[in-house]
Formats: sequence, structure tokens, C-alpha cells
Amino acid sequence: MIEDIIRDYLPGDASWAEGLREAMNYSVLAGGKRVRPTLMLETYRLFGGSGRVIEPFMAAIEMIHSYSLVHDDLPAIDNDELRRGHPTTWKKFGEATGVLAGDALLTFAFETAAKAFEMDADPAAVGRAIGVLAQKAGIFGMCGGEYVDTAVTGKAVSEEQLYYIYSLKTGALLECSMMIGAILAGASDADIETCRRIGLDLGLAFQIRDDILDVISTDEELGKPVGSDARNEKTTYVTIHGLDAAQEEVARLSSEARGLLGQLDGDAGFFGDFIKKLETRRN
Amino acid sequence: MIEDIIRDYLPGDASWAEGLREAMNYSVLAGGKRVRPTLMLETYRLFGGSGRVIEPFMAAIEMIHSYSLVHDDLPAIDNDELRRGHPTTWKKFGEATGVLAGDALLTFAFETAAKAFEMDADPAAVGRAIGVLAQKAGIFGMCGGEYVDTAVTGKAVSEEQLYYIYSLKTGALLECSMMIGAILAGASDADIETCRRIGLDLGLAFQIRDDILDVISTDEELGKPVGSDARNEKTTYVTIHGLDAAQEEVARLSSEARGLLGQLDGDAGFFGDFIKKLETRRN
Repeated sequence: MIEDIIRDYLPGDASWAEGLREAMNYSVLAGGKRVRPTLMLETYRLFGGSGRVIEPFMAAIEMIHSYSLVHDDLPAIDNDELRRGHPTTWKKFGEATGVLAGDALLTFAFETAAKAFEMDADPAAVGRAIGVLAQKAGIFGMCGGEYVDTAVTGKAVSEEQLYYIYSLKTGALLECSMMIGAILAGASDADIETCRRIGLDLGLAFQIRDDILDVISTDEELGKPVGSDARNEKTTYVTIHGLDAAQEEVARLSSEARGLLGQLDGDAGFFGDFIKKLETRRN
Repeated sequence: MIEDIIRDYLPGDASWAEGLREAMNYSVLAGGKRVRPTLMLETYRLFGGSGRVIEPFMAAIEMIHSYSLVHDDLPAIDNDELRRGHPTTWKKFGEATGVLAGDALLTFAFETAAKAFEMDADPAAVGRAIGVLAQKAGIFGMCGGEYVDTAVTGKAVSEEQLYYIYSLKTGALLECSMMIGAILAGASDADIETCRRIGLDLGLAFQIRDDILDVISTDEELGKPVGSDARNEKTTYVTIHGLDAAQEEVARLSSEARGLLGQLDGDAGFFGDFIKKLETRRN
């Protein structure tokens, strides 16, 4: 169902720019766990949301996530040629199209989110959701985290910087997903803030578990080469604190998220399962 | 005054990502004629707009214009090292930061536009303006034009393709500037559509005058090397139709824009002067 929503909101016929549309769709439809739209939808439901106004935002957050991978893979940044076993967008379509497909996806995310104004929804809530989407994707969110991650390559990284990178690069879009679900369902400001903190905890736990898997998993299980952090001499939570302390931190963050969920009314069953899987995931 | 508005809306302190903020601000404050925010403000005034809700959109359209230049200059696209006599963003800050500063500017444009929701304005009009901003900047606007312009490099270009490229690459943001001014001032749908057509005419005339200047101007007058279209074997309106027919087309488009302006109520004096300057500009 989430796949269908994402697919439905992809751009239609683009005349002479069909090649750009092809590259955009390739990037979005390359697979992935759709974690962000799932969290957004479940948060919306948790607060009693039942309309379709959430759908353009679910598609938009996945477009933003996809564009970030497309630009991350560029030769100027990570220079990756494979993602999930397939050529990366720039490798398949050329570097210029890689840049432009990312730009067009990011822009189309906002065009898509703005379609919510044509739906039966409170325009003030839709406007607030668009503001949060932009804030958490930009310099005070994901882009800021990406930048610092790139800027510290090959340098000593302090724990404070590492926390900053994880919070913004991974945490911000999860915060945003849960906040938008809550905003569009009409949650109170206090509950929106609780959702932001849960999203941040989940993002940090997710990232630290990623660091662990890069050490303990196998190429087959992970679907990509393990040991890349060591090869790139990258500072991670594991290189600073070791594997055991890292898994303890995942457990601590998960427990904190569970505590925050307990402060919210409604059936948080989905989130309990989600956190359990997150703590022990192998890929 | 327009410079002050743009400057006021640039991002504040960015903690560890200060280097990204520096690159963003460098790109936006590198100068330029501020054509788009000027057209937006004057259209807003033409329809009797007098509030401050136009200001975040004026800053946003200039951020989008700036990001498009930053990404256009990248080695993967035009590989330009100088713009207006200064190093381009990627040349000054590195290629990774060039990509990320463009991404962050594009995202911050929407964060900035969304600040209009906190102002005393009709949220439906603000929402519609954000939708137009995204549409005209994306695959069905500027990004689409950029893509086709890049894709046809070194190939024969039909007049239909050339018109498509000019309409989207240059026309779309001018359409958008005038449409947003009209939307936020509460203009009718018919008047918003007239503004779109005027913006398109101005964009096409602007681009064809650019083609002409690349042949008849001097390096000093233009502030950049002339003859670049010939060196790059680029198809332009001038290479297809010649200089005289090109200037006649500028005059025809200008005349059409004047006719459309005549259909609008209000004092269009600014636009008359603007078109006169556009027709005969030397840089």
C-alpha cells in the first residue's frame, strides 16, 4: 500500500525531459524499507488520523530520502557505483543527470506535499508540516549532517560532532516523519514534541545499530560490503566505545523511546514491534 | 531594500555546519540583478499588495535561482570556475560542498517560503504560492529545462526543443515570480494566468537577448567572455535565425508582453520601463 502511494505521486509525462523523469523514478523505485513513510503513517494513525492528506507527505519524505542517496553516491561525495546491488543513479544515467535528478526529486517533494492544499485538510496544519519538512531536510537537518559528515572525512571526530552528525543526518528525517504524522492528525504541541524526541531516539539507535552491523554482519546478510567504516577509517560509535557499549546505547535509546511512547494516548503497538526489530535487525 | 530582504532571510548560526552556511551565503550574496524578486514585488504591488508576506517568497525565489547557478557551475555540468569575476562556489569550497550548498539553498527556499504561514496572510494563497514555486522550479519547470539543455549538448537541436529549453530554463522562474506576486495579492485566476504569460514572454525575450549579446557584446561590457555559444557549438536562437531576426523576436515578445500588461488594471509603469531596458540591454 505504501509502495502504491509512492508510485502514484511520482511525476507524469515530462515531454523532452522524459530522461530526467526516468532517472527520478529509478532512484525512488530502487527499493528500500520505506521506514520514513511507514513511521509517518503510523504516527498519523496513533493520533486518530484517517484522511488521505498524509499520503502526499508520505511520498514527499521518501522522495527527499531518495534524493539524499542519489547525491550522496555522486563521485564528488561518496563515489559509490552500487546501491542494493544495482548501479547508482549517476553511474547509470551519467553524473550531470545524477545531480539534476536529485535536484528534481527534492523539488518534486515540495510540489507533492503542496498537493495537500487541494485536499480536505486544515491549510494551517499543512503549511506547518511543509515548514517542518523543509527544516528537517535542510541546513538545520539532513543537509547540515551530510555536510559535517563530509567535512570531517579523514579528521579526528569528537563525540559531540558524532552525535551532531547522527542526529541531523539520520535523526532529522525520522523526527520529521513522526512530527508530520502528528501535526496532520491535529496532535497537541506537547505531543508533537514528544514525537520529535521519539524520532530522534529511533534515528540514533538506527544509526548505531548500522555501525554495529558494519562490524558483525556479512556481505550477504547486509546486501552490501561490510567493514566499510574500518576501510574508510571512519569514526563511529563503535570505534569510540566498542561493540558492547554500542549495543547498550541502542538498548538505552530504545528504552527511552518506549518511555516516551508511554506518555502518548492511543495504541502504540506498531512502535513497540518496530523498536524490537530495530534493536536486533541484521540488515 | 531587496538586498536587505534577501540578506535577512539567509540562515542563522549553524553550529558545526557553519562552513555550509558560509557557502550558501557566498552563493546568494555574489551579486546579480535580483530580477526575480523585483518582478515578484512589482507584480504584488500592481495588484494592490502591500503586506510583508511577499518578502519570504522574494528571498526564496532568489535562493532557488542561486542554487541553480551553483549546481550549473559544477564540473559534472558546465565546469565553470568563475562567475561575475569570482570563483564559483564549488571552486572556492570544494565540489562536495558545492553539491550540498545547492541542496541546502533549494531546501532553505521552501523553509523560508513556509515562514509566510506565520504571517498575517491567507494560508490557502500561501499554500498555492508554494505549489507554484515548486512546480516552476522542478521537472516541469527549471530542472526540466536544465536537463534537456544538458542532454542535447553536442547534438542537433530542433526549434521546438530550443523553445522548450528557453521556456523552462529561463521562462519558468519568471512566470513563477509574477504568478506568486499576483496570487499573494489576491488576483483573479484570469489575471494570474495573464501574469504567467507575461513572465514567459519576458523570459524568452531575456534569453534571446542573451544569445544576441554573446555575439555583439564585449568581454568588458558583458562581464564574462563573449562568444561562448560559438566556442561550445551551442544552438541558439541566433545560430538558427541570425541576429536581425533574433532582435525582431525580442521586439515581438516585448510587444506581446506590453499588450498583456494592458489587460491588467493598475499602474504598469515599472513593467514598461523594465521591458524597454530588457530589449536594449548591453549586459
